[in-house]
Amino acid sequence: MTTPDASRRADGRTPDELRPITFQRDFTTMAAGSVLVSFGQTRVLCTASVDEDVPRWMKGSGKGWVTAEYSMLPGASPERIRREVKDGKPSGRTQEIQRLIGRALRAVTDMEALGERQILLDCDVLQADGGTRTASICGAWVALHDACSRLVATGRLAANPITDACAAISVGIIDGQPRLDLPYEEDSRAEVDMNVVMTGAGGFVEVQGTAEGAPYSRAELDALLGLAEGGIATIVGMQREVVAAAPDPR
Amino acid sequence: MTTPDASRRADGRTPDELRPITFQRDFTTMAAGSVLVSFGQTRVLCTASVDEDVPRWMKGSGKGWVTAEYSMLPGASPERIRREVKDGKPSGRTQEIQRLIGRALRAVTDMEALGERQILLDCDVLQADGGTRTASICGAWVALHDACSRLVATGRLAANPITDACAAISVGIIDGQPRLDLPYEEDSRAEVDMNVVMTGAGGFVEVQGTAEGAPYSRAELDALLGLAEGGIATIVGMQREVVAAAPDPR
Amino acid sequence: MTTPDASRRADGRTPDELRPITFQRDFTTMAAGSVLVSFGQTRVLCTASVDEDVPRWMKGSGKGWVTAEYSMLPGASPERIRREVKDGKPSGRTQEIQRLIGRALRAVTDMEALGERQILLDCDVLQADGGTRTASICGAWVALHDACSRLVATGRLAANPITDACAAISVGIIDGQPRLDLPYEEDSRAEVDMNVVMTGAGGFVEVQGTAEGAPYSRAELDALLGLAEGGIATIVGMQREVVAAAPDPR
Amino acid sequence: MTTPDASRRADGRTPDELRPITFQRDFTTMAAGSVLVSFGQTRVLCTASVDEDVPRWMKGSGKGWVTAEYSMLPGASPERIRREVKDGKPSGRTQEIQRLIGRALRAVTDMEALGERQILLDCDVLQADGGTRTASICGAWVALHDACSRLVATGRLAANPITDACAAISVGIIDGQPRLDLPYEEDSRAEVDMNVVMTGAGGFVEVQGTAEGAPYSRAELDALLGLAEGGIATIVGMQREVVAAAPDPR
Amino acid sequence: MTTPDASRRADGRTPDELRPITFQRDFTTMAAGSVLVSFGQTRVLCTASVDEDVPRWMKGSGKGWVTAEYSMLPGASPERIRREVKDGKPSGRTQEIQRLIGRALRAVTDMEALGERQILLDCDVLQADGGTRTASICGAWVALHDACSRLVATGRLAANPITDACAAISVGIIDGQPRLDLPYEEDSRAEVDMNVVMTGAGGFVEVQGTAEGAPYSRAELDALLGLAEGGIATIVGMQREVVAAAPDPR
Amino acid sequence: MTTPDASRRADGRTPDELRPITFQRDFTTMAAGSVLVSFGQTRVLCTASVDEDVPRWMKGSGKGWVTAEYSMLPGASPERIRREVKDGKPSGRTQEIQRLIGRALRAVTDMEALGERQILLDCDVLQADGGTRTASICGAWVALHDACSRLVATGRLAANPITDACAAISVGIIDGQPRLDLPYEEDSRAEVDMNVVMTGAGGFVEVQGTAEGAPYSRAELDALLGLAEGGIATIVGMQREVVAAAPDPR
Repeated sequence: MTTPDASRRADGRTPDELRPITFQRDFTTMAAGSVLVSFGQTRVLCTASVDEDVPRWMKGSGKGWVTAEYSMLPGASPERIRREVKDGKPSGRTQEIQRLIGRALRAVTDMEALGERQILLDCDVLQADGGTRTASICGAWVALHDACSRLVATGRLAANPITDACAAISVGIIDGQPRLDLPYEEDSRAEVDMNVVMTGAGGFVEVQGTAEGAPYSRAELDALLGLAEGGIATIVGMQREVVAAAPDPR
Repeated sequence: MTTPDASRRADGRTPDELRPITFQRDFTTMAAGSVLVSFGQTRVLCTASVDEDVPRWMKGSGKGWVTAEYSMLPGASPERIRREVKDGKPSGRTQEIQRLIGRALRAVTDMEALGERQILLDCDVLQADGGTRTASICGAWVALHDACSRLVATGRLAANPITDACAAISVGIIDGQPRLDLPYEEDSRAEVDMNVVMTGAGGFVEVQGTAEGAPYSRAELDALLGLAEGGIATIVGMQREVVAAAPDPR
Repeated sequence: MTTPDASRRADGRTPDELRPITFQRDFTTMAAGSVLVSFGQTRVLCTASVDEDVPRWMKGSGKGWVTAEYSMLPGASPERIRREVKDGKPSGRTQEIQRLIGRALRAVTDMEALGERQILLDCDVLQADGGTRTASICGAWVALHDACSRLVATGRLAANPITDACAAISVGIIDGQPRLDLPYEEDSRAEVDMNVVMTGAGGFVEVQGTAEGAPYSRAELDALLGLAEGGIATIVGMQREVVAAAPDPR
Repeated sequence: MTTPDASRRADGRTPDELRPITFQRDFTTMAAGSVLVSFGQTRVLCTASVDEDVPRWMKGSGKGWVTAEYSMLPGASPERIRREVKDGKPSGRTQEIQRLIGRALRAVTDMEALGERQILLDCDVLQADGGTRTASICGAWVALHDACSRLVATGRLAANPITDACAAISVGIIDGQPRLDLPYEEDSRAEVDMNVVMTGAGGFVEVQGTAEGAPYSRAELDALLGLAEGGIATIVGMQREVVAAAPDPR
Repeated sequence: MTTPDASRRADGRTPDELRPITFQRDFTTMAAGSVLVSFGQTRVLCTASVDEDVPRWMKGSGKGWVTAEYSMLPGASPERIRREVKDGKPSGRTQEIQRLIGRALRAVTDMEALGERQILLDCDVLQADGGTRTASICGAWVALHDACSRLVATGRLAANPITDACAAISVGIIDGQPRLDLPYEEDSRAEVDMNVVMTGAGGFVEVQGTAEGAPYSRAELDALLGLAEGGIATIVGMQREVVAAAPDPR
Repeated sequence: MTTPDASRRADGRTPDELRPITFQRDFTTMAAGSVLVSFGQTRVLCTASVDEDVPRWMKGSGKGWVTAEYSMLPGASPERIRREVKDGKPSGRTQEIQRLIGRALRAVTDMEALGERQILLDCDVLQADGGTRTASICGAWVALHDACSRLVATGRLAANPITDACAAISVGIIDGQPRLDLPYEEDSRAEVDMNVVMTGAGGFVEVQGTAEGAPYSRAELDALLGLAEGGIATIVGMQREVVAAAPDPR
C-alpha cells in the first residue's frame, strides 16, 4: 500500500496513512473518565463527568443522555486563540462541533440501559494541528466507555450501555489527491474537506463534505469515503484494545 | 415516474417527487433583489442587499464577498418560535444554516468580478414546513442573481459575476424508504436526514448526512445522493427560467 | 374634501387623506391569526399565537394577557437594517413600540373573558415606508380578533373577548402643514411627529407627540388630534368589515 | 386657589397644586454641573459632564450634542430595585426615559453655539415617589445650564447656548379627577397618566398620555394639558431664579 | 502626634491622621437603613434592604445572609465614569469590592440570630476621592445595624444579630512614607496600597496589600498595619456613637 | 524539620512542608513558553504567547505589557465545573485571579526592556486540588521567562527583561494550626486563608489574608507570613534551576 516518493506528503506519510495515534488513559484522575488522545501533534484532553441530577425534561423518562462540550486552550496554536468567554456563547463553529460529538456518541449508547443520568464529555484541545473534532470523538468515546465501566464496577449500572465503538476521521482532497487524516497544513489548503463518523460495525453516523474551492464530483466523493472507511477501521481497533482491560477503580 | 399507491407519501407524492415550487420575484421592492420562494407550505422571503462599504479586511483586495443571515418569524409554525434577539447571538442551528447558505452562494460567485463590495442575503422564513435551509439557498440564489443583474444594468458591474446556478434539497430515509424533499412531518421522524447542495453543472458543494437513529449503510448513502441529484437538476431548470428575463429596473 | 393642487403632497394625497390600506387575512396559515396589512408601501405581517401555558404570575388569577413583539426584516428598507439578534436585547425603540402595541390591544380586551391564556402578537415589518408601528396596531387587532374568533369556534371561549375596535395612525406637521398618515419621506423631515391610538368608540388610548424641531403650540396640537380622529374612524370601518365574516376554520 | 376639604388629596394638596420643589445646586462638586432636585419625597441627583471628545459622527460638523442617562438607586424605594447591570442593557423603560430627557434638553440647546462638544446629563434617582422622569428633566436643565455657564466663565464658550428654560410635569386622572404632579400613591392607580414637557416660552416639546384603564375623552385630554401648563409655568420661574446668579467657579 | 511641616500632606494632615468623617443617618427614608458616609470629599450612600424571601439554597437552614452591591455614580469624579449597565456584568473591580464588603459585614453578623432573611447593602458612591470601598464598609455597617434595630423594634427579631463593630481603612506608602486614609491624589501614586478591615474587638477580617511599584519589606508591612489599627479604632468609636441611640421608627 | 505524628496533616506533611512540586517544561510546543506545573494533585498548564501587535494605548510608549488569563477545565474536579463561556464574562473570582497573576508577573518585568510587545500568560487548570492561583503564578513565571529567553535567542530582545524570580503560595490556619501550601481538603475548612506573592529577593508583591470564620490576631498574621516566606524561598530555588538552562530553540 506504499506509494512512490513523489506522492509522499510533507510529513512523509502516504495518502492513506494515519498519523501516530495514542490514547493516554486516566491522564487526570478526578473525572469518571479521562483520556489524553493524540493524533500526531493534535492533543485533546477528553474527560467524562457523570451527572445523576438529570435535566427536568428527562425526569421520569427512564432514559439517560450523553452530551459534549468542546474548547481550544488559547496556547494550543502558534497564533494564540482568543477565549470565547467574553462572547456570552460558544461560537457557531464550537457549537457545531459540540453537537457533532454529542450525536456521534449518542449513536452508540443505549439510553435506556444508561438510565436516568447524564454523561457530559469535555473535549479540551491542548494542542491543535488539524482534526481536533475527529480526535475529540475518538478520545471521548474511550472516556465515555471508562466512565460507564466505573458505573458498572461500583454497581450503579448492571452492564455497560455502550453498544459499539465509534470513531471519526477527516479526509480531503489536496493538490488533487484524496488524503486521509489531514494535519493543519493540509486542512488549511484542502480543496475538499470531509469529516466522517462511523461505528465499529461500519455504519455511517455522519458525513460532512464541503467544497472549499471548486465543487467535487461523485467519483471524488466515493474515493474520500473509501479512505475514511479504512482509517476508521484502524482507529476502532485501537479503541477496543484500550478498553479491553477495565479501568482502575476510583 | 409514478409508483403504486402503497408507496405514496402522506401528501400523495412519489418518493422521488418534489413539492410544488414557486419563485415570486420582487415580492418586496426596496432591496436590490427580493424573492419569495415556496416549497409546498414552506415559504421564505430572500432579499439581497448590496453593501459598497466592505469590511476593513477586504479593502484593497479587489475582491468581493457574499454572506447570509437566516431567521424564522415567530408565527412561522403552529407552535410559536421564540425570537433569538434576547440571546445575544443567533443559536448554533441558525449560525450553522447561515454559514451553509453563504458557502453555497460563494461557490458560484466570481469574487474578483464582483469587485470590492459585499452582498448580504437575508432569508426570513415566513412559514416553515421542512426544508427551510435548502429553500433558502434556492431562493437566495435568485435574489443574488437579480441584485447582480441590477448592478450590471446600472453600470456598476461589467458582467454578472454569478458563474453557475446553485440549488439545494433535503433527502432522507423514512420508514426505510429513501425520499426527496421532506416536509416537516417526514423530517421529524426521518431515520437519516441529508442536505445536498449542488451547482448547475452537477458538482457537489456540500453533503451533510446525519443518522438520527441507526447508522446508515454505503448503499443507502448512494441512494440518497441519487435522489438529490435528480431533484436539484429540476430546481436548477426553474431558477434559470426565472432569471432568463432581466429584472425590472430599480 | 379635495384641496387645490398647491397643497398636494409628494404622493398626490390631500393633507387629510390616508394611503391605500389593505388587510390580507390568513396570509400565512399556521398561526391562530395572520394578517398582512399594507399602508401604501408599508407592509407588516401580523400573526397571533395563543399560549395556553401562561406565565407563573398569571396562574390562578383567572385572567389572560395580550402582548406584542415587533421587528423589521433586514431587507425592509433600501438601506439594509441590521438584525438586533447580536445585541442581546431589542433596541430601546423596538421595546417602546412593542409596549405601545401591547397596551393598545389590551385596552380593548376583556382579560377575564379571555381566561388564563396569553395571546402574543408578532408584527414583522416586511417593507417599511413610515407608520410601521401604527400599521402594526391596526393589523394586529385583526389578527387578535381572528385568533379569538377561532377560540370561540373551537369551543375554547364562550364569546369573543375583544370589546371594541382599536386603530392607530401617525400625524405630523410638515412644511408648517398638519398632515395625516406620514410616509417615510414626510416622517423623516416632520417638525412635529405624533402617534395616536383610539378605540372604535372614539376614546384615546395613547397620544404621543414629539417636537423634532421647534416646540409646537396648543393650536397645532389640536389640529393634529382632529386629523387623527378622522383617519382612525375610517380605518376602524375597514377593520370591522374584515372581521364581519368569521375566519376560515383551522 | 384652595378647594373644599372634600377634594383634598391624600397629602393635603389641591388638584392643581405642585409638591414642594427644591433645587440644591452643587450638591456634589466634581461634575461641571450638579443639582439635587426634590419634588416632595422624590429626589434626583442630576450631574452634567462635558466631553470635549465628541463621537466620530459629530466631528467636523461644528455642532454639539446633549444626551442623558437615567437610573434608580436600589434603595430608592421601599421595595428594593434590582440593578440593571446584569441585564447587559438598560431596560426599555429606562431607555425610553433617557431618550425623553435628552430630547427635552436638546429642544432648548443651540447646538452650533455649543460647538463640537457633548454634554452628558446623569439623572440618578436617590428616592422615588412618582414623577422621577419629569423631576429629572427639571433638575437636569439646571445642571446643564450651570455646566454651560462654567464653559462661558472659563472662556471655552462665548455665550450660554441654552436658548430657553425647559421643564416637565406629570398629570393624570385619579378617581375621575384631573390632578397635577402625581406622587407614587396616585400614579400607581391613575386611570390616565400623562407627561408633558414644555419650554419657558410655553411651547410643547413632548406630550405622552396613556390610558391605563378606560380610554379618555378629548375633554379630559384638554383638562390635563391645562393643568400641566400651569404647573410648568411655576417650575420655570423657580429654575430661572436658581440660574439667575452665576454658579461658583470650579 | 503632630509632625513638622515638612512632612505635612497636601491636605495638611499628618501621616497618621484621618480625614474628617461624618455619618448622616437616614439621608433617605425608604430603605430599612440609610447612611450617607463621608471621608473628606468621598461620599457614599449606603442603604440596607431587608428581603424576607431568601434564595432557595437558604430555605430551611434557619440562617440568614448579608450581601452587598457597589457602584459609582457617573458624575462622582471629574472625569465621568461610564455606567456598567451595558457590560452585562459588574466589572471585576466592582465584584471584588462587593465581595469584600459582604465578607466584612458577615464577619460580625450572627446568621442564626438573623434568621431566614437576607439583608442587602447598596453602596452607591456619590463622590469619589479615594477610599470608596473602605468608606462603604464603614457606612454599610451603620445602615446594617439600623436595619436590624428596626427589625427588633417591630418585633421581627428578638435581639440585634450584629455581634461587633466593623470598620475599614486604606493605608499606603507615598514618597516612601507610610500614611493613613489615602485621598485619590495619594492613592493614585502610592508605591504600596493596602486595605485593612477589622472588628471592634481588634481582630483582622481582611488584609489586602499590593505593591504598585517596587515590592515592600516586612518592616513596611508592619508599619502599615500599625497605622490601620489606629485609624480603625477611631472609626469604630464614631460608629458606636451613631448607633448608640435607636433609629427613628419607620 | 519533621514533627511528631500528632501534628501530621492528612497527607502526612508537616505544617511547614510543601507538596511535591514539578515544572514540566515545553509540555506543549506551539506557544512561546509552555509549562505544566504540579503542586501535588494540582496541575496547571501555563503557556506564554507573544503579541507584537500591542493595544493602541501602548503604541509609541516604548513599553511592553504582561497580562494573564485563568480558567479551570470542567473535568478538573470531582464535581464538574461549569464553563464560563455562557456568562459573557469571566466570573468575579476568575477576574480577581487573572489580575493577581498579571500584577505578580509585571512586578518582575522591566517593561522598557521588553519593548512594545505584549506577553499573555494562559493558566488553564487541568486538575484542581487547592492553590491553583499560586501554582499558576509559579508556572507562569517559568513560561514567561522561557518566552523571553526565546525572544533573546532569536534576536528580538537584547536581554531577558525578567528582573527577578516571582513565586506564590497559600497559607492558612486549620484546626488552630498555621499551615503551608493548602490542598483542597484544608483550604475548604480553613479559618484563615492567605495568599502571598513574593520576589526572589524576598520583597512582598501581594498579601491577601481573609478570615473565613473568626477574625485573626496580629500574632497569627505574623506566623502565616513566616510560613509563606519559607515556602516561597524553596519554590524560587526550583524555578531558578529550571530556567538555568536555555529552552530548546523553536
